[in-house]
Amino acid sequence: MSAPQPKNYAFGMIGLGTMGRNLLLNMADHDFSVAGYDKDTSKIPLLQKEADEDGVHNVEGFTDLSAFVQSLAKPRVVMMLVPAGKIVDSVITEITPLLDEGDMLIDGGNSYFLDTTRRAQELAAKGLHFFGMGISGGEEGARRGPSMMPGGDQEAYQKMKPVLEAVSAKVGGEPCVTYIGPGAAGHFVKMVHNGIEYGIMQLLAETYDVMKNGLGMENESMQQVYAKWNQGRLQSFLVDITKDIFAYIAPDTDHLLLDDIKDEARSKGTGKWTSQIAMDLQVPLSLIDEAVAMRDLSKYKSLREEMEKVYQARPTPGNDDQEQQLQELEQAMYFSMIIAYAQGMHMLARASEEYEYNLNLANIAKIWRGGCIIRSEFLNTIYNAYQQKPDLAHLLLDDTVRQHVQESVAGARAVVARMATVGIGTPALAAALSYFDTLRTGRMPSNLIQAQRDYFGAHTYELIGHEGVFHTQWTPMHEDAENKEDTHRGTGTENETPVIPNK
Amino acid sequence: MSAPQPKNYAFGMIGLGTMGRNLLLNMADHDFSVAGYDKDTSKIPLLQKEADEDGVHNVEGFTDLSAFVQSLAKPRVVMMLVPAGKIVDSVITEITPLLDEGDMLIDGGNSYFLDTTRRAQELAAKGLHFFGMGISGGEEGARRGPSMMPGGDQEAYQKMKPVLEAVSAKVGGEPCVTYIGPGAAGHFVKMVHNGIEYGIMQLLAETYDVMKNGLGMENESMQQVYAKWNQGRLQSFLVDITKDIFAYIAPDTDHLLLDDIKDEARSKGTGKWTSQIAMDLQVPLSLIDEAVAMRDLSKYKSLREEMEKVYQARPTPGNDDQEQQLQELEQAMYFSMIIAYAQGMHMLARASEEYEYNLNLANIAKIWRGGCIIRSEFLNTIYNAYQQKPDLAHLLLDDTVRQHVQESVAGARAVVARMATVGIGTPALAAALSYFDTLRTGRMPSNLIQAQRDYFGAHTYELIGHEGVFHTQWTPMHEDAENKEDTHRGTGTENETPVIPNK
Repeated sequence: MSAPQPKNYAFGMIGLGTMGRNLLLNMADHDFSVAGYDKDTSKIPLLQKEADEDGVHNVEGFTDLSAFVQSLAKPRVVMMLVPAGKIVDSVITEITPLLDEGDMLIDGGNSYFLDTTRRAQELAAKGLHFFGMGISGGEEGARRGPSMMPGGDQEAYQKMKPVLEAVSAKVGGEPCVTYIGPGAAGHFVKMVHNGIEYGIMQLLAETYDVMKNGLGMENESMQQVYAKWNQGRLQSFLVDITKDIFAYIAPDTDHLLLDDIKDEARSKGTGKWTSQIAMDLQVPLSLIDEAVAMRDLSKYKSLREEMEKVYQARPTPGNDDQEQQLQELEQAMYFSMIIAYAQGMHMLARASEEYEYNLNLANIAKIWRGGCIIRSEFLNTIYNAYQQKPDLAHLLLDDTVRQHVQESVAGARAVVARMATVGIGTPALAAALSYFDTLRTGRMPSNLIQAQRDYFGAHTYELIGHEGVFHTQWTPMHEDAENKEDTHRGTGTENETPVIPNK
Repeated sequence: MSAPQPKNYAFGMIGLGTMGRNLLLNMADHDFSVAGYDKDTSKIPLLQKEADEDGVHNVEGFTDLSAFVQSLAKPRVVMMLVPAGKIVDSVITEITPLLDEGDMLIDGGNSYFLDTTRRAQELAAKGLHFFGMGISGGEEGARRGPSMMPGGDQEAYQKMKPVLEAVSAKVGGEPCVTYIGPGAAGHFVKMVHNGIEYGIMQLLAETYDVMKNGLGMENESMQQVYAKWNQGRLQSFLVDITKDIFAYIAPDTDHLLLDDIKDEARSKGTGKWTSQIAMDLQVPLSLIDEAVAMRDLSKYKSLREEMEKVYQARPTPGNDDQEQQLQELEQAMYFSMIIAYAQGMHMLARASEEYEYNLNLANIAKIWRGGCIIRSEFLNTIYNAYQQKPDLAHLLLDDTVRQHVQESVAGARAVVARMATVGIGTPALAAALSYFDTLRTGRMPSNLIQAQRDYFGAHTYELIGHEGVFHTQWTPMHEDAENKEDTHRGTGTENETPVIPNK
């Protein structure tokens, strides 16, 4: 091994956008010497300027990829923070010939997890360790401590562990980063994190709608509600920033900036992927599905305006019992937030089986407690639940969670019922409640669906207490009832005939 | 052109399962001479037996693919009715060398529409016309008249039109088949048909649950309700068979077969695809999403049984006002069924733009009125709506539909509110209502979501009445408030700074 050179940087970053620069400065803060690379030459002085302002040294920017790679200590640890998609592939194509066997390449963006699976396989064939690492926390998180979800080769992870643990957020002194699992496990877990984030953001939007249009409340009162929530069991980053948003006056005006912002919500795809993949995994993720659908509906602004004319504006009920209704709303939010986390954790458990990620759900909850967008007081409860019972079949089966659910479900019932009555949409709140009420029944009405499918498509059904699948000729195939042939009836004493599904 | 040979069959069928045999016999009924092929030699005598029983001639079965192809008149029209997926590709690989330029190959299964797009391109390069054709109606439909949705080359369609029109279902003398559009348009429309089918089946299951567990009704009374519904505006195939299912006694017992059927609903993927593709198209399809999620949830039988122990069985309210509650339930079902169709039609409109299918929504509604699983009285209203205004932006903007919606929404409100209160899940009914209440507001609370996204991720937002995207530094980035730099405020008189999204 050669002696350390002056330019023997411990960590390299490709892509010096705000996130990339902030994460680099964060590393430099923790005494790691780091190198950054961006094709865009304007980023280099920006990095330098921010480093100077923050009094951070041991940071160097490069616009030449080869020089950048050469400046790194071996085995190299290089992170990409570039937009997900084709750009990741083109950076990989460019940098691969410059790397040596055993080097580590981390994709810190929100890549689609199946892309990560493919890339990891391709690079493994070249002796390189590819990591898909979810990073949450936004700009501020990147600078002050994000939550990070790295997935890839477990042994190679040990080499990057010191720097990641140093720069991560800390909760009770413990780093908000842990090895997640092989292959695309890191990006998968980050995707589900974002799905939960979509769910909670939609829930908060609905509470806003309930207070504004259901209770006729003013912004200032709503600000107080969110501030109060953030002092209690709903304490979380998302409630915290919501409270701030309700205090932010548009410059040179006397009203909230919020009131000037268009109600067309954008998205970058991670919530959508979560719902789509959940459907492939056959995990019900109804609350998050609604959050995705409502972002989509928000984009049909002119259609909604036209509908409003046709179907009248929504009525505003009085705010009698405002105190009680706000208590119920807090309960509804808490109950539904629990469901959002529970659906996400359920999906992780199923994915862990399906993709053999061997996920440690306790550790995932643990590192989500700090740095990331969905950090919350409640994640401590989730952490404890999975610590006590790593194979917990569903979060709602945990005793402590059960108590929270039972204490708060009444509020959810009241809010959903009242808003359904007065005509204010609460899609995610209602989905949470319906999910709960369906989940807690051993007998769903889905036997009817099976009967219907067998009736029209001969798709067969199963019987309680019998093995096999069965088919019934529910009505005569032909017009004349005499010809009626009934597979079900037609077998004498053995009433049910197991058949192979025939389509 | 050679003189007609004795074996100059007008139509060939590959795959002689129940659907394939029935469709062939249906064609033979209409005086088309037809040939069938199946690798499974046991299917040939079965086809022969059924033809004999039905007094149908001019049908011949083959187990040799080459002899089968040679028996067909040119240009050949060959339909595959084989399971979707790899089998379709392997049949194509086998048959392609045997076909001649200008021959037509129809995939009549439920193939994924992107597979159809690919196959159509591959076969077009070989001078063959590939059609993706959705067929709905199940076994009975295939024999007596299905609804068919063929997509592919419009000119080639003219050659198969006579046989398809002859065998299709008829409504008012008009065939339930029409040229849908190019490429995979036929399979796409069939996929959305199935999505709507999932939605309506879930709604019916929920009405069953409401009556059984919400009103404590017996099967016999429920049978009467469904029979009555089927006499009114809810008249439809699915209500019709539901009525039958509630009359079907399990052999050698005195109770309904329905009560013995397991409540784990299976699926073959078309509903799931509909929801997944809707998310790609950014069309909110929340009711159908819930139907997919609830099929998934139904499969977690043991989990639900465990939950029932923990969270107690659902309470049964009294059935006071049963008459009124049943009226409300009928309204709720009607309202929500309209929403199911409306979401599906909305998706078709978006897909038509996105994939340039040039769909004629009136004609699609028209051919759905007979033969298919979602046929219903209400489809006449949909047909009329799009006939009057082919570019109707949303079904709910039609005047007649509006009246139906306004007449029935109160029942939906009452049912959703009551079930939310008593603890019975109505996920699809609630999703329909929330969708409606959100759709009819010109101002959603999604401005909060945009503010949150900009706060934590600098994702930018848009402002009412201003062009461009904006970013605000909502709080000081650094601990010391003095350093606060606010992109939003920092530009003097021009308060809002258009910025390029920087992540």
